[in-house]
Amino acid sequence: MFKHVDYLQFQAKPEKPDALLAAKMQELVGGQFGEMTVMMQYLWQGWSCRVPGKYKDMIMDIATEEIGHVEMLTTMLARLLEAAPGEATEKAAAANPVLAAVLGGMNPQHAIVTGGGALPRDAAGVPWNTGYIIASGNLLSDFRSNVAAEAQSRLMTSRVYNMTDDRGVKDMLQFNLARDTWHQQQWLLGIEQLVADGFTENGIEDSNGDDENQEANHTFYSFDPESTAGEGRWAQGPTLVGGKEIVYVPDAQPLTDDKPLGPAPDPKLFVTYDGAMGKGKPGTGAGAHAQGVANVVNKIKGALD
Amino acid sequence: MFKHVDYLQFQAKPEKPDALLAAKMQELVGGQFGEMTVMMQYLWQGWSCRVPGKYKDMIMDIATEEIGHVEMLTTMLARLLEAAPGEATEKAAAANPVLAAVLGGMNPQHAIVTGGGALPRDAAGVPWNTGYIIASGNLLSDFRSNVAAEAQSRLMTSRVYNMTDDRGVKDMLQFNLARDTWHQQQWLLGIEQLVADGFTENGIEDSNGDDENQEANHTFYSFDPESTAGEGRWAQGPTLVGGKEIVYVPDAQPLTDDKPLGPAPDPKLFVTYDGAMGKGKPGTGAGAHAQGVANVVNKIKGALD
Amino acid sequence: MFKHVDYLQFQAKPEKPDALLAAKMQELVGGQFGEMTVMMQYLWQGWSCRVPGKYKDMIMDIATEEIGHVEMLTTMLARLLEAAPGEATEKAAAANPVLAAVLGGMNPQHAIVTGGGALPRDAAGVPWNTGYIIASGNLLSDFRSNVAAEAQSRLMTSRVYNMTDDRGVKDMLQFNLARDTWHQQQWLLGIEQLVADGFTENGIEDSNGDDENQEANHTFYSFDPESTAGEGRWAQGPTLVGGKEIVYVPDAQPLTDDKPLGPAPDPKLFVTYDGAMGKGKPGTGAGAHAQGVANVVNKIKGALD
Amino acid sequence: MFKHVDYLQFQAKPEKPDALLAAKMQELVGGQFGEMTVMMQYLWQGWSCRVPGKYKDMIMDIATEEIGHVEMLTTMLARLLEAAPGEATEKAAAANPVLAAVLGGMNPQHAIVTGGGALPRDAAGVPWNTGYIIASGNLLSDFRSNVAAEAQSRLMTSRVYNMTDDRGVKDMLQFNLARDTWHQQQWLLGIEQLVADGFTENGIEDSNGDDENQEANHTFYSFDPESTAGEGRWAQGPTLVGGKEIVYVPDAQPLTDDKPLGPAPDPKLFVTYDGAMGKGKPGTGAGAHAQGVANVVNKIKGALD
Amino acid sequence: MFKHVDYLQFQAKPEKPDALLAAKMQELVGGQFGEMTVMMQYLWQGWSCRVPGKYKDMIMDIATEEIGHVEMLTTMLARLLEAAPGEATEKAAAANPVLAAVLGGMNPQHAIVTGGGALPRDAAGVPWNTGYIIASGNLLSDFRSNVAAEAQSRLMTSRVYNMTDDRGVKDMLQFNLARDTWHQQQWLLGIEQLVADGFTENGIEDSNGDDENQEANHTFYSFDPESTAGEGRWAQGPTLVGGKEIVYVPDAQPLTDDKPLGPAPDPKLFVTYDGAMGKGKPGTGAGAHAQGVANVVNKIKGALD
Amino acid sequence: MFKHVDYLQFQAKPEKPDALLAAKMQELVGGQFGEMTVMMQYLWQGWSCRVPGKYKDMIMDIATEEIGHVEMLTTMLARLLEAAPGEATEKAAAANPVLAAVLGGMNPQHAIVTGGGALPRDAAGVPWNTGYIIASGNLLSDFRSNVAAEAQSRLMTSRVYNMTDDRGVKDMLQFNLARDTWHQQQWLLGIEQLVADGFTENGIEDSNGDDENQEANHTFYSFDPESTAGEGRWAQGPTLVGGKEIVYVPDAQPLTDDKPLGPAPDPKLFVTYDGAMGKGKPGTGAGAHAQGVANVVNKIKGALD
Repeated sequence: MFKHVDYLQFQAKPEKPDALLAAKMQELVGGQFGEMTVMMQYLWQGWSCRVPGKYKDMIMDIATEEIGHVEMLTTMLARLLEAAPGEATEKAAAANPVLAAVLGGMNPQHAIVTGGGALPRDAAGVPWNTGYIIASGNLLSDFRSNVAAEAQSRLMTSRVYNMTDDRGVKDMLQFNLARDTWHQQQWLLGIEQLVADGFTENGIEDSNGDDENQEANHTFYSFDPESTAGEGRWAQGPTLVGGKEIVYVPDAQPLTDDKPLGPAPDPKLFVTYDGAMGKGKPGTGAGAHAQGVANVVNKIKGALD
Repeated sequence: MFKHVDYLQFQAKPEKPDALLAAKMQELVGGQFGEMTVMMQYLWQGWSCRVPGKYKDMIMDIATEEIGHVEMLTTMLARLLEAAPGEATEKAAAANPVLAAVLGGMNPQHAIVTGGGALPRDAAGVPWNTGYIIASGNLLSDFRSNVAAEAQSRLMTSRVYNMTDDRGVKDMLQFNLARDTWHQQQWLLGIEQLVADGFTENGIEDSNGDDENQEANHTFYSFDPESTAGEGRWAQGPTLVGGKEIVYVPDAQPLTDDKPLGPAPDPKLFVTYDGAMGKGKPGTGAGAHAQGVANVVNKIKGALD
Repeated sequence: MFKHVDYLQFQAKPEKPDALLAAKMQELVGGQFGEMTVMMQYLWQGWSCRVPGKYKDMIMDIATEEIGHVEMLTTMLARLLEAAPGEATEKAAAANPVLAAVLGGMNPQHAIVTGGGALPRDAAGVPWNTGYIIASGNLLSDFRSNVAAEAQSRLMTSRVYNMTDDRGVKDMLQFNLARDTWHQQQWLLGIEQLVADGFTENGIEDSNGDDENQEANHTFYSFDPESTAGEGRWAQGPTLVGGKEIVYVPDAQPLTDDKPLGPAPDPKLFVTYDGAMGKGKPGTGAGAHAQGVANVVNKIKGALD
Repeated sequence: MFKHVDYLQFQAKPEKPDALLAAKMQELVGGQFGEMTVMMQYLWQGWSCRVPGKYKDMIMDIATEEIGHVEMLTTMLARLLEAAPGEATEKAAAANPVLAAVLGGMNPQHAIVTGGGALPRDAAGVPWNTGYIIASGNLLSDFRSNVAAEAQSRLMTSRVYNMTDDRGVKDMLQFNLARDTWHQQQWLLGIEQLVADGFTENGIEDSNGDDENQEANHTFYSFDPESTAGEGRWAQGPTLVGGKEIVYVPDAQPLTDDKPLGPAPDPKLFVTYDGAMGKGKPGTGAGAHAQGVANVVNKIKGALD
Repeated sequence: MFKHVDYLQFQAKPEKPDALLAAKMQELVGGQFGEMTVMMQYLWQGWSCRVPGKYKDMIMDIATEEIGHVEMLTTMLARLLEAAPGEATEKAAAANPVLAAVLGGMNPQHAIVTGGGALPRDAAGVPWNTGYIIASGNLLSDFRSNVAAEAQSRLMTSRVYNMTDDRGVKDMLQFNLARDTWHQQQWLLGIEQLVADGFTENGIEDSNGDDENQEANHTFYSFDPESTAGEGRWAQGPTLVGGKEIVYVPDAQPLTDDKPLGPAPDPKLFVTYDGAMGKGKPGTGAGAHAQGVANVVNKIKGALD
Repeated sequence: MFKHVDYLQFQAKPEKPDALLAAKMQELVGGQFGEMTVMMQYLWQGWSCRVPGKYKDMIMDIATEEIGHVEMLTTMLARLLEAAPGEATEKAAAANPVLAAVLGGMNPQHAIVTGGGALPRDAAGVPWNTGYIIASGNLLSDFRSNVAAEAQSRLMTSRVYNMTDDRGVKDMLQFNLARDTWHQQQWLLGIEQLVADGFTENGIEDSNGDDENQEANHTFYSFDPESTAGEGRWAQGPTLVGGKEIVYVPDAQPLTDDKPLGPAPDPKLFVTYDGAMGKGKPGTGAGAHAQGVANVVNKIKGALD
């Protein structure tokens, strides 16, 4: 259960309205790595966490903070949009190049849809969706996703930070930058803790590890004869898991003579084929239908042996 | 420019068709962390890479391999769908519980849309989209995303691996598991190389780092009075960057008295407000319109001082 | 800013796992009118609300409760998925029709993607997106949307309620049904309060009302000569606004002789046209180009007069 | 079956082209509450309506009118785009601030994709999708959604109305505003008719109403200790259904000691857990696998008792 | 403007309900090539058509027919769903394999969301969106898209036709198959008419044709040394346009020594680069910033020369 | 399996950066008919092709070329974005109308998300998704889709070609225009080859052709009494298939007296109905429930006779 306190975690006071900046800052609200993403990703991971105690509490703490970050940003956006012109026309633009830029660059939905408030969308106006988030139940994999999300989120914030001179906006973004620096470390420390607690040996996702192909797990295949990829650490020295020596294969060749060719499907699906049945219109090769039906029966029988 | 070799990188030969497994394996083709995602993510990162030589070549090598992984999976799916029933009816189900399961659980689009082939969609039938991928131009941030993508991809593969006894499917997935183990390491080694080459000091995204808030970058705020999050490594000991001592703040309070309240917008937008203008119907408060227009002019003037 | 309490608002204890029911209950989590929708809709309306005091506080209170409702549902789903089969195969189905149903009907992403937890998706597996929510800043319009969301949400809940005999699931859904009954009333009472406070006269959105066409605002046009729509209250008696007598127009005719025909665009766009320029290939009609360019200049000049 | 009459319902004659306005008016075509939404929502409700006679006829009449409204808007947009520049360049912008605004603010897809016509997208360029519409078969719930759709649609129209001085555009929007005023009333009158005909007692969706929790259906829970939400009508006085006295609960507490913690899933899913099985790597805790398999069997058996 | 006639164009009377078939037939309603697609594609093309007379009338006639086809299908779906179980449970499935199949394979949203009606979604439950349709204003290109849409639509219909023995369903699908056969021809005849009317010479989109590269317009490049693509008509004989002899290039090589490498962007964007500025952390290379700023000014100046 | 060659197929060297043009060219990268679409469409068709030899090789050759076309465009975009301003502000715009246009019209995600690189999105910023592509396994239908894709792709390219004077951009687009001209022909020649090889008689998709309704397959129904559609070739003369004489039906009437009315569903779904059960609240009509349950049993039994 959640509670609300009617103060922002950190102030969101721009010096002046700026509709163009508001259009750009939408990326930090509803972008692939905006605050909605980390808010929802951590809430779902917290709710999905099956380890009671410090792990679950930690995730829920961060998730709860992030709801407040969306709150900070929506407040900032509403204030940046204070003077968003509801009536400005081409005539005004003719007299004022700044207005021309605002007319061109401001997000029309900031006026039409929200009446001067933030949108739950990115800087291109695309609605946020849960295809951006992950909660797999596997803390190692999810903490890796979280480090990445914080790094990308910080980078986007940093780029926007350089796009304004507004002291009030920069103050808030300095807070956000710091949280992203901190949160990157926190999730990396979370992986250290998972190792310390015996949930993973080395921070590499290796479930069913004994079953994996023992050649392909330490080999760099190169697919361009002129590639210089062999010069990097990823192509030489010991692996991080198991201490094998990395193998570098320049100009890699197929490991099989199997070709990417599917079988003839049920003729009733009218797929173009010839194969064993001879040429002909889809679905009408002699005997194809009967054979297809027989296949269905036989193959499923085989599945039960 | 690319070339094609008409052999699979690794064979994709199931022992028998299995339409139910095919429905599940769609997640490994077109899911959030399916092979299409890593293929497209690495292609875009390679094309966006501005550092010629080993970094760009390495990314392009992996990207090129991943196109072939989608090829392997689409071939496997077509073979698993060989016997997908194009005509089976409820009558058949009445006599055969297995067919009942197949009828219920197979993906109808495997018959209707592709005629017995793989779909560029996930296990729920949702089309793949580029909202899943990232190419920021910043190699550190992108390599972090790549580690996460390989960990999640490997986990999904491992879960599907346990859902079948088919020797041929398991053979191919063993290859894929190994590549994901290896690729996790490769991107981590890539970060080591970035450090060695001086592109980052410590693997933490810290652009504009001097500007960030110096309190908030090493503080854990807890938002549940009964939270045990303070017991973890993320709440004690030195930070990974700068060697500060982590501060743990239980039951965190707002750092400001600023409230999440936006300003009254242009009355022509008919937002419900009262604030300084007195109560009234949206857009018709006395003087509100005139004041709104004056605001527009003044605020933008302010932006130019 | 938000806080978290590590207890559910209401218990979520199913009697037994039920993977099929879990697949259906996804609609109540991530559907068009699932709990994520009301949670996010109210949070955004609260953040967008410019009227401090009871309105803003009320919206934020409900929004905060709804975060907890998503928490209840994700907990319920995880428990319903406890026995979700990670290994079950066709062989098992052959021996057990129930397993056949489970194999066919359970959501494979519940195993592959979340490892036995809820998904932020609907019952068809479609990711939730912010295209489902609205926060216009206009409280009257938004409260109307909220009444509708609660009515639809309650209806979906009620349908799912009838699909299970599980006492524990039904207990929780009885709580949810009650909240939806209550919340429908609350938003209707909110409209009463808006009227009492003078923000709207009659609960009908009527901004720029004096400007609207005074014929079309009380006329029912019918477009099927055999329509019986004229028998309803919507076709007779006084309007709710302004007390005009409703006019019913059977077999309505166009109110204009204007036809739906666009002008010839810039020839450089290669649209097929003839119009005033004579027949010819797109983009090559004699003089069309020159005329098009002249049009651009003249029309924009006209815009500035 | 449908018929077409090659005249617009109401004329769509702008005084002059205006590519910027065209970009904004896309919201009224393909936005969340644009004409495509009401057209498709009412068509689907009409087709889903199981009550023959006045209800079904009324819905189909309105739906049929709305197809014509999309036709009016697409015609208007094509005319506003008449002079959309197919070739304008930065050089032109250097000499003309208006052109600069047009270059910046016009929708490039209006030239590239449609060749000077309307797009089936919103003002941000996002394609329209059926996630915006609802047809539940329950007329009460759907009429509530329709009132909301008309209110929001009217508000968006009203905001755009204020963004132009074009007499021809304003004429058409005055017609649209009037229809939206009227349609709000029509759906409210539809609810009155449902009450009169005995399909609902009070206009509140209350299916399975006797089963709902009898405390939670008249209680306002507040989640912020400083909330002033108790001052509104929604927190005092009688309910609209059943005439209970509303209960206001400040600083609400959890109603249960149940915590949001899911059970340990099948170890083959590699979820991080400890719980009853002791600490360990996901999927490898001693005995966990065997126990998981036993769980599957037992729990499903339980489902059949 | 449109009118409605309250009869179906063709009857939609299934012999019996069949919830599984209903789930599959969703593809014909809301799939990529379902009836909603052709309905909306032709409506938009008709509205976008700038050639008055037979072309515009023909497109509007077909579009109007297609609205009625969606109506036929939604009626059929509602009837197939008549007995869709609102309460069936696992217990019922235990006793009846058919019910098990129905439980597994029926679309749960058919009960929960529509209450036994069709959904505006495809067979995987994905909402229909306008990304499926095209209306470019260029009739030749659009007629080509229409031929394709009818061919694909017919194929999907034909596959579903084979999945049922229901005489009533088959009757209606026989009508639909015939319309798709006819409509393929109609759009091909439309291209013949465009040629006859001089709107295109040869049915190939060739705007700006004189400007195109005169080598690349008749050359088949092969990218697999073992490719047998040279054996087809597409690799030999005269072209359809201009009568050149097709050139076949086996094992094609790059036509340039230009490499896919982007320039170093503004250092304030923190992209990883080295290039001319020497190695270093993104954004901090000596002199990089100053140089970047100078670039901005100089390059834009260049744009105006 | 694929290989990469680190040279572009054709050079991508703009004369100068141009952020506005880059925003528009996104349509050619990630639009409905951008290069990503043809790349992915042909790859999936190639992988789905069951006819080994010249057909499969031809499709894979073209698909492989198209990967390289995306590479060319991403390189071009990165170079056009070289000077994309990372810091420009309203102050700069005040002094420079060109900058005002750039500020307004450039895509902010080109700076914030990619750091000066191409996006996998269209000109409106909408992410690319696999809903744009088709691979049905039926070569005739797919080649029809490919002709359409090339025609539309060429048209979009041609429109953009006219929007710039940059010699380097035009050079590359001239190559792309030529490939699109060529590829249109290639797919048409592919259909000729299918006819020659006996896979189709006449290039019309006609699976289950004998079963189709023999009236509806050569009849033009008109739905507007004033339609002039009868003047075109599509309304007179012989059909392309079977040589019947086309029948033109002006002012078409319904072919049935069947009305679009669904049956009353299970009362537990709370759909509003009356029908045979008399008026009443949804779900509570006397006897409705019992009858509904009986219906379920009887109808499914019927399905097995």
